[in-house]
Amino acid sequence: MIKSPTLTFDARAELLADALDKNSLPDVARALDRLSVAETMEQLERLNSIDRALAFRTLSKGRALEVFERLDALLQADLVAGLQDAQVAEVFAGLSPDDRVALLDELPASVAKRLLLGLSDKDRALTNTVLGYPQGAVGRYMSPQFVTARPWFTAAQTMARVRAQLDDAESIYTIPVVDEGRRLVGVVSLRDLLRAAESDPVASLMKDPLSAPATLDAEEAARYCADAKVLVLPIVDAETRLVGILTVDDALGILEDAESEDAARAGGAEPLRRPYLATPVRSIVRARVVWLLVLALGATLTVQVMGAFEATLAEQVVLSLFIPLLIGTGGNTGNQAATTITRALALGDVRPRDVFKVLARELRVGAWLGILLGGLGFVLASILFTVPLGLVIGLTLLGVCTMAAGVGGLMPLLGKALKVDPAVFSNPFISTFVDATGLIIYFLIASSVLGL
Amino acid sequence: MIKSPTLTFDARAELLADALDKNSLPDVARALDRLSVAETMEQLERLNSIDRALAFRTLSKGRALEVFERLDALLQADLVAGLQDAQVAEVFAGLSPDDRVALLDELPASVAKRLLLGLSDKDRALTNTVLGYPQGAVGRYMSPQFVTARPWFTAAQTMARVRAQLDDAESIYTIPVVDEGRRLVGVVSLRDLLRAAESDPVASLMKDPLSAPATLDAEEAARYCADAKVLVLPIVDAETRLVGILTVDDALGILEDAESEDAARAGGAEPLRRPYLATPVRSIVRARVVWLLVLALGATLTVQVMGAFEATLAEQVVLSLFIPLLIGTGGNTGNQAATTITRALALGDVRPRDVFKVLARELRVGAWLGILLGGLGFVLASILFTVPLGLVIGLTLLGVCTMAAGVGGLMPLLGKALKVDPAVFSNPFISTFVDATGLIIYFLIASSVLGL
Repeated sequence: MIKSPTLTFDARAELLADALDKNSLPDVARALDRLSVAETMEQLERLNSIDRALAFRTLSKGRALEVFERLDALLQADLVAGLQDAQVAEVFAGLSPDDRVALLDELPASVAKRLLLGLSDKDRALTNTVLGYPQGAVGRYMSPQFVTARPWFTAAQTMARVRAQLDDAESIYTIPVVDEGRRLVGVVSLRDLLRAAESDPVASLMKDPLSAPATLDAEEAARYCADAKVLVLPIVDAETRLVGILTVDDALGILEDAESEDAARAGGAEPLRRPYLATPVRSIVRARVVWLLVLALGATLTVQVMGAFEATLAEQVVLSLFIPLLIGTGGNTGNQAATTITRALALGDVRPRDVFKVLARELRVGAWLGILLGGLGFVLASILFTVPLGLVIGLTLLGVCTMAAGVGGLMPLLGKALKVDPAVFSNPFISTFVDATGLIIYFLIASSVLGL
Repeated sequence: MIKSPTLTFDARAELLADALDKNSLPDVARALDRLSVAETMEQLERLNSIDRALAFRTLSKGRALEVFERLDALLQADLVAGLQDAQVAEVFAGLSPDDRVALLDELPASVAKRLLLGLSDKDRALTNTVLGYPQGAVGRYMSPQFVTARPWFTAAQTMARVRAQLDDAESIYTIPVVDEGRRLVGVVSLRDLLRAAESDPVASLMKDPLSAPATLDAEEAARYCADAKVLVLPIVDAETRLVGILTVDDALGILEDAESEDAARAGGAEPLRRPYLATPVRSIVRARVVWLLVLALGATLTVQVMGAFEATLAEQVVLSLFIPLLIGTGGNTGNQAATTITRALALGDVRPRDVFKVLARELRVGAWLGILLGGLGFVLASILFTVPLGLVIGLTLLGVCTMAAGVGGLMPLLGKALKVDPAVFSNPFISTFVDATGLIIYFLIASSVLGL
């Protein structure tokens, strides 16, 4: 995939691993020397923090910066701890303002303060504009370095301005157009500027601008940028004055982190925020244990429900055989619904206001699933055991599937309405409420059908 | 978020819904008239296929095309069924070759054939180059319309070429450089061209090109494009001859679909491929029922295990009280591990070759989780019930967590190695194997500790 893969990925990995085992920096340098930036990153992201710092130090100045600015902020922070101040100051100054802020968020306050003071006045000013916005807002991810045009500029004037700022501007391919008050009035693409006659006024070339307020949630802004398929999304303040631009690759980074977070939480864990192999085992445990405890404590509810029906169980031990299957099916149905709605919320396909639409659909879906599974369950259980038992199993599956799909569909919406991550909210609720309710449904149906 | 939101999203939605209820096309047209492309899409994606076709017909020619080309291929196919041939031919011709191919894949062969024949020779040729690659390969998503430069061109010559192809080229911001044999030898950015002196040769401006073979899996290529933060990824054939370009927004679309698929499968369902509210209930049922059946049939394994220990249960009914909690915890631990590794595989942080690294880590993580939860379980169960029972619960949690984390971590890797979607593979395996094994661990520990 990469132009000059003189070695396979695994061979490169082994070469580097050996060099690190031997603690021989020249060998490490040689192992990294022939790699592209992307390949170097792949390798660094697989090392523990000590080896990573060691390997990083062997990189040439230019390469070191290229690699550093692409690493996750948390890995950058790990590295900073392992480098000499001079080197740190250098890479820090080399970062773009938004990347700088992301790193500052991960560093101890004292280190962050020192690094900020080390910056040139211009760089510090730029960094502070970004730092000024709350965490999680798109203002934190925007670039304050951009070229602007005015409606009355000619195409030629604008092109001259672009040429003058080629080195500073984060992107030159979509140029925001602002009025005297720096209010955003349009955007003009470099493509249209090239197409235009030199004397054409920008006003005749510009399009209505899409834009997002700097305080908007970063994920929403990134999703908007992606859906609109624009390379640059202008970011404005409350008075629609242009304050920065969000580039599509920054949007991509934001979305990727959001996806990782959703995936982790859907699986009942916190995101790791470092590549898996670069995450210490204790961090992985920390990311999972809280969730497991919450879920386990919630599950004690099922112990109580079971206890309440202990007599029924004692009378008909056979009933207990189906418990894992029944609550398993309930949990699966609930998760299916919750995952679908969580994703639909993330994509903006569904909004909290659609709660009744969603409930109606999920109940119908759940009922259908219950009829199909319940029918099968009835037949199988009737053959393998007794017809009454088959009836109990069939009816329970019908009830559990309908209930689980409904609950699973509602939870993410409820979470969103309560401003909690839908996944965080759904997961424990489903695997406790649905399990417990499912058991109650089961025992009630059983006692009425079997007359216990 | 959009420049002129004269109405809130919900107000727009209601206005449109009312107009559709009244079946009054003028009102529908008025409801859509004031909306931006993005807003129009949001609305269309919430309607059923009939209403959508109805609303779409009221759009102006230009707007109709803008909207159509942004819709998911499946929704486009739905629309095609509801439009007159003339209109269809028009929007079809207006699509870019890669979008055209995506739509063709969703249409009945007869319709697809007719539409292809309706194209101009040039458009048909372009479409066929893309059609020539296997489904799922990046060649299917690339654009065959691009500007190229030669190493010996001057910057001025290249700019002239760019200006000449402003209307056809999919992207002009990164220009692939090819030799006489059309082999990719470099890329030059429009930014560097603008910076250069008119007489500078491209050879002195171009950088080593990243590229992907046209037969590479689309998701891998898209991920590579995103990680490398390039606006354009050149796509080459087996002889590294340039055949197309993948633009970052197409990469984004590919990744978004891949994420939706992973999310759905992690939740034990097939992706819907249409926005939730636009998906018929029967399609949702179809997307879920197969999975539920597989999982339920797998779960019958637990019924057998329980059956094998029915005597033990009859003797100590109290044991059954903890079954939902214990297998629930096992399932959660397994899912945590599986989700983490599935995501790490998707991001390229982990490879099948890392299987032993992963297993070692997950077993350690699982053991830690087991010690923490088991300790708690021991204390609680000893207080609420008896110390021996507490011992059983504690030891079982330790065993189950370790086993579940190990299995959960291995399954995605095994799936990947077997070329099955890791999520598809992990999900049923964990919720059957882990449940059944967990029960066996439980009953064995119980019978030895309680001496049954």
